[in-house]
Amino acid sequence: MAPPQYNHSLLPESQCDRIEVVLVSPRNPLNIGAAARAMANFGFSRLAVVAPYAEHWREARSAVGAPELLAGAAEFAALAEAVAGCTLVVGTGSLAYRKPEQPQVPLPNLTPLVQRELAHGGRVAMVFGPEKHGLTREDLSWCHLLVEIPTDARQPSMNLGQAVAVCLYELAVRASPPARPLTADADTEANDHLEDPGRATTSGDLDLLAGLVEEVMLAADYSPPAMREANRHDLRLLLRRLALPRRDTRRILGLFRRILWRLQRGKNGG
Amino acid sequence: MAPPQYNHSLLPESQCDRIEVVLVSPRNPLNIGAAARAMANFGFSRLAVVAPYAEHWREARSAVGAPELLAGAAEFAALAEAVAGCTLVVGTGSLAYRKPEQPQVPLPNLTPLVQRELAHGGRVAMVFGPEKHGLTREDLSWCHLLVEIPTDARQPSMNLGQAVAVCLYELAVRASPPARPLTADADTEANDHLEDPGRATTSGDLDLLAGLVEEVMLAADYSPPAMREANRHDLRLLLRRLALPRRDTRRILGLFRRILWRLQRGKNGG
Repeated sequence: MAPPQYNHSLLPESQCDRIEVVLVSPRNPLNIGAAARAMANFGFSRLAVVAPYAEHWREARSAVGAPELLAGAAEFAALAEAVAGCTLVVGTGSLAYRKPEQPQVPLPNLTPLVQRELAHGGRVAMVFGPEKHGLTREDLSWCHLLVEIPTDARQPSMNLGQAVAVCLYELAVRASPPARPLTADADTEANDHLEDPGRATTSGDLDLLAGLVEEVMLAADYSPPAMREANRHDLRLLLRRLALPRRDTRRILGLFRRILWRLQRGKNGG
Repeated sequence: MAPPQYNHSLLPESQCDRIEVVLVSPRNPLNIGAAARAMANFGFSRLAVVAPYAEHWREARSAVGAPELLAGAAEFAALAEAVAGCTLVVGTGSLAYRKPEQPQVPLPNLTPLVQRELAHGGRVAMVFGPEKHGLTREDLSWCHLLVEIPTDARQPSMNLGQAVAVCLYELAVRASPPARPLTADADTEANDHLEDPGRATTSGDLDLLAGLVEEVMLAADYSPPAMREANRHDLRLLLRRLALPRRDTRRILGLFRRILWRLQRGKNGG
């Protein structure tokens, strides 16, 4: 009946280095600094910023006492680029006023999912939206799932720096990988991992596949041009629901390249 | 082997109301606001402030969008008064440069202790020190134990607002009382609780006992006056190590009153 006791160690550096913190258009330099400080507190170092407000971003980086990792932060124009190398993209935020299109996971239940992803050699992105309105529906379409910090319904919206601190505390303290593999009995699966350590598909490869499928849809006159944006959005979500192993993605890419070639030859020929 | 799944509910209000957040001499109005906001996020409402800087405290309370609970915060001149009604006083902070005089508990292991305290009808105080140097040795002598947020050794010191958020997240999400009493087989103990719901001694009663014991030490010429401060400090810590049930405290108070009376009669008479 005794609860499990915490063993005093944070997530090892080799695992922390495979978790990226992504801030989308952060506005307040104090919040940027607070997010970076929480990262340093819990042993994380990989920060990416998407489309920051230039002035605020400069101010945050030059602030007295700014954590070192701010200087090494990567800057991207679009979220798709920032998470291209990740196999599990986790959106954050309160969803009180939004109907989510992805699976929602309370923060305490995220830990085993991240643990598994890291055990399989994957890379995880934790994506935080701008202070005022959070991540947009478009931003969220790059996320495999949404994590929700359990909060009181009367005051659900958290400060950005505090939300980052709480999420990283949870991962640092509770996502330490177990000493033995998760599925010790599955020999075949274990061999799979040896052959192909990063066996999940990265966000970038999913975008590649989505682009190809879209070309096929166009070439096949699948739907009217007015539907193109909506189809693109739905396709992005659909591909992230599939949890495609990397080798299957390669096979599917090959298939769609072939289909596209046939469709275009057919059009040109006919 | 599946990890326990979080059940989506925060600590119930009746339990949150028996956890006090105590800020000792907070300096930065933004931090005071952030601490209050984290409290509101996780369903806590009882905030106490000890010896605040008047101007900063006023500023924090009048800030636009300040959580309502700031207006209702209690103000005390001394930590002893702020925690007088509590049966478990928990100090926070990084102890990298200090040799602690009390038991130290990593935050994830605090949860079952708080859970037990609440199940026994007790009141818990979470005490946070000033931004620069944290709680003093004197402050800490009112604490039954010290909680340490596990952090990276290269950047151990957390921002006040973020430390409050992380501690309250942990308690709100993981300290929900079990549906059945912790010791279902101990009938006598269960009856004990019915008779005496708040069976642990409050910090205020421990101070009362400490004062009486000090008078006895003086009356008995126990040690030279130069030792008085050190004795008082050690006694305060000693009483908090004992985990005295309330009824025993009453008995011991009675005993020491009797001793004092005898000592003083002896002196006056002799």
